[in-house]
Amino acid sequence: MIKINSNYRKLQSSYLFVEIAKRVAAFQEANPATDIIKLGIGDVTRALPPSIVSAFEAGVQEMGQDESFRGYGPEQGYAFLREAIAENDYQSRSAQISADEIFVSDGAKCDTGNILEIFDHDIRIAVPDPVYPVYVDTSVMSGRTGTMQDGRYQGLTYLEGSPENGYVPMPTPDLRADIIFLCFPNNPTGAVATREQLAAWVDHAHKTGAIILFDAAYEAFIRNPDIPHSIYEIPGARDVAIEFRSFSKTAGFTGTRCAFTVVPSSLQGVDAEGNTVPLWELWNRRQSTKFNGVSYPVQKAAAAVYTEAGQREVRAQIDYYLENAAIIRSTLQDAGYSVTGGTDSPYIWTTVAGDSWDFFDRLLNEAGVVCTPGTGFGKAGSGCVRISAFNHREKVEEAMRRIRPVLG
Amino acid sequence: MIKINSNYRKLQSSYLFVEIAKRVAAFQEANPATDIIKLGIGDVTRALPPSIVSAFEAGVQEMGQDESFRGYGPEQGYAFLREAIAENDYQSRSAQISADEIFVSDGAKCDTGNILEIFDHDIRIAVPDPVYPVYVDTSVMSGRTGTMQDGRYQGLTYLEGSPENGYVPMPTPDLRADIIFLCFPNNPTGAVATREQLAAWVDHAHKTGAIILFDAAYEAFIRNPDIPHSIYEIPGARDVAIEFRSFSKTAGFTGTRCAFTVVPSSLQGVDAEGNTVPLWELWNRRQSTKFNGVSYPVQKAAAAVYTEAGQREVRAQIDYYLENAAIIRSTLQDAGYSVTGGTDSPYIWTTVAGDSWDFFDRLLNEAGVVCTPGTGFGKAGSGCVRISAFNHREKVEEAMRRIRPVLG
Repeated sequence: MIKINSNYRKLQSSYLFVEIAKRVAAFQEANPATDIIKLGIGDVTRALPPSIVSAFEAGVQEMGQDESFRGYGPEQGYAFLREAIAENDYQSRSAQISADEIFVSDGAKCDTGNILEIFDHDIRIAVPDPVYPVYVDTSVMSGRTGTMQDGRYQGLTYLEGSPENGYVPMPTPDLRADIIFLCFPNNPTGAVATREQLAAWVDHAHKTGAIILFDAAYEAFIRNPDIPHSIYEIPGARDVAIEFRSFSKTAGFTGTRCAFTVVPSSLQGVDAEGNTVPLWELWNRRQSTKFNGVSYPVQKAAAAVYTEAGQREVRAQIDYYLENAAIIRSTLQDAGYSVTGGTDSPYIWTTVAGDSWDFFDRLLNEAGVVCTPGTGFGKAGSGCVRISAFNHREKVEEAMRRIRPVLG
Repeated sequence: MIKINSNYRKLQSSYLFVEIAKRVAAFQEANPATDIIKLGIGDVTRALPPSIVSAFEAGVQEMGQDESFRGYGPEQGYAFLREAIAENDYQSRSAQISADEIFVSDGAKCDTGNILEIFDHDIRIAVPDPVYPVYVDTSVMSGRTGTMQDGRYQGLTYLEGSPENGYVPMPTPDLRADIIFLCFPNNPTGAVATREQLAAWVDHAHKTGAIILFDAAYEAFIRNPDIPHSIYEIPGARDVAIEFRSFSKTAGFTGTRCAFTVVPSSLQGVDAEGNTVPLWELWNRRQSTKFNGVSYPVQKAAAAVYTEAGQREVRAQIDYYLENAAIIRSTLQDAGYSVTGGTDSPYIWTTVAGDSWDFFDRLLNEAGVVCTPGTGFGKAGSGCVRISAFNHREKVEEAMRRIRPVLG
């Protein structure tokens, strides 16, 4: 019988959101009349805006005519999209990123997992805690960790977030990691990092030779003008950081699927013989060999995000979710809970009394509201829950009415 | 500096089609007036058929309304598509495959590369030669081979195709491999395997404990009623084979992106402690953690392939390409070349005098026609070229007029 990748056996339980879906389904079956309100998984709920739908449709129409039909596109994405990204997301913010450093993909989740393929098996990985589970699980699956002991994987370094550091862990001089996952605005805590905090990380990476994998999937929620949207706004970051972005949360693309990864040409690694190798070359080779690009009409839709109308429409959508976030945030604060996030982020993170799965079950059973137990995001998340602002206003208001008694 | 995955350094040259694109671009720049006809990369050229465009558009429209908007879909694909596939592609051919054994993805190229992740690092891999380069390159990149020597990677087993075996290599009793890649109708040779030939492979896998990775991306081109479309038409295949399919070539989806992989629930592997583990569980975990499903409108478009109108339309498209194939095939045969493929396949494979890159350059320089040098598909392909039937009729006819003098 064929030998499997035994690293998969180290995974402790099913993927967090799969477990939540299971409990919700069981509750719904037992309570068919309850209108469950989901503030759990961070999934957008509002329709694609009109100018994005129009561009999407026009792309489909082109595919229906021989003259404008497109077969295989560039694995890296079409130039029209890569150029729009470089100009609008980077150059306009004085971040020196060019179109050919951008790799369009079907999801930041895929990219944050797949990127590990281009590095040596024995790299040391550091992750935040609380953490987006994909960073951890893909590290485990690719054999970069030992087994789990006391709620943490051996061989992984956990960068601990806490109410004290505002869930923005800082580098310590003794930290030794080859890969450092950072995520701001943070999923799950909603925390954002200041320019000074990011600069400290970039400085640490320069000093230790680490590569920062910077997940900026939620950057569009930043409204505070002093908070950087991209790590490349920090001088020197081009030499130490890869950045992941997505249209999922910024433009409602969770079901449409488009994202991108930035690999600056200046990033380098070293092979077993000691030769330096641009990481760009490796990722380009990985994507050319194992990926076939994103659906053309989807790329047309994504490019429409950068038109004047598109920018206005997606900003209005994000404002809407941010207003939801403000409602959730004040409900929790009024009930005496201390809260992170919810201002430059769609997530509200709060400490609850007791175990976070217990709180999850209470909210589900007593209020028919779904949140995400913090313990699913790591040891530092136990005793916390994440509440998401992705829903319709009336649902959010109804959910707040229902949970107030449960909050005590 | 961070250590890279040094296996990438074993790769001998850039991915085949990237190299072709480079030479074509150089020729076009030097000869701006020449209308180059591409019969190289296997890329469809005809528009998406009307009923598929309609379904695609309807899917986009749904995304534009709050009431019908869809966010994250199931990582494994929507039930409506998985059920249509199970019923039409399998159950209708007496292959016992159920909807939940089907994993919808954005490309067979991605899946054939990614599937290796669920197996142990030290598995022995067998590939056909000539071979679709992705099987080899992803084996190399994932560390399952040594370095290249004399045109072949150490540690890989090559299943040699030749004019003598009709490019259908058969298992020998001494073959020891944990993974066996097979592809029928074959890319690049156009060869198809009979029921008896596939049964011999299934029997071999049963006896040796190997897993067959069966690439059936071109099954829709089969017109001979005796040739199986799926390996699951062979009794016992459910216990030894994973199958890859794609809408790329069957329905013109190379730029639209949809494919699927079948992992039967009966397939098993063994972990380091000797426990048996269903491969389905591992692939489901891999996809749930590192993939976020296919764009909803794209899945709607794919499902339309299985409607009555869709079936009629895609069959007409494939008939069109098969008529192109017949024209190419007879042109080569009339000039005295011996030919494989071109009847149940869009590819025509032929032996040429001398080196296959030389023939490629002659066809490009003297006729402005692009083919694919056989040597790009492995050692057994040297002295051969692949010509693709994917183009418009008038282009194919013009290409044949131009190449006749070059054929000699």
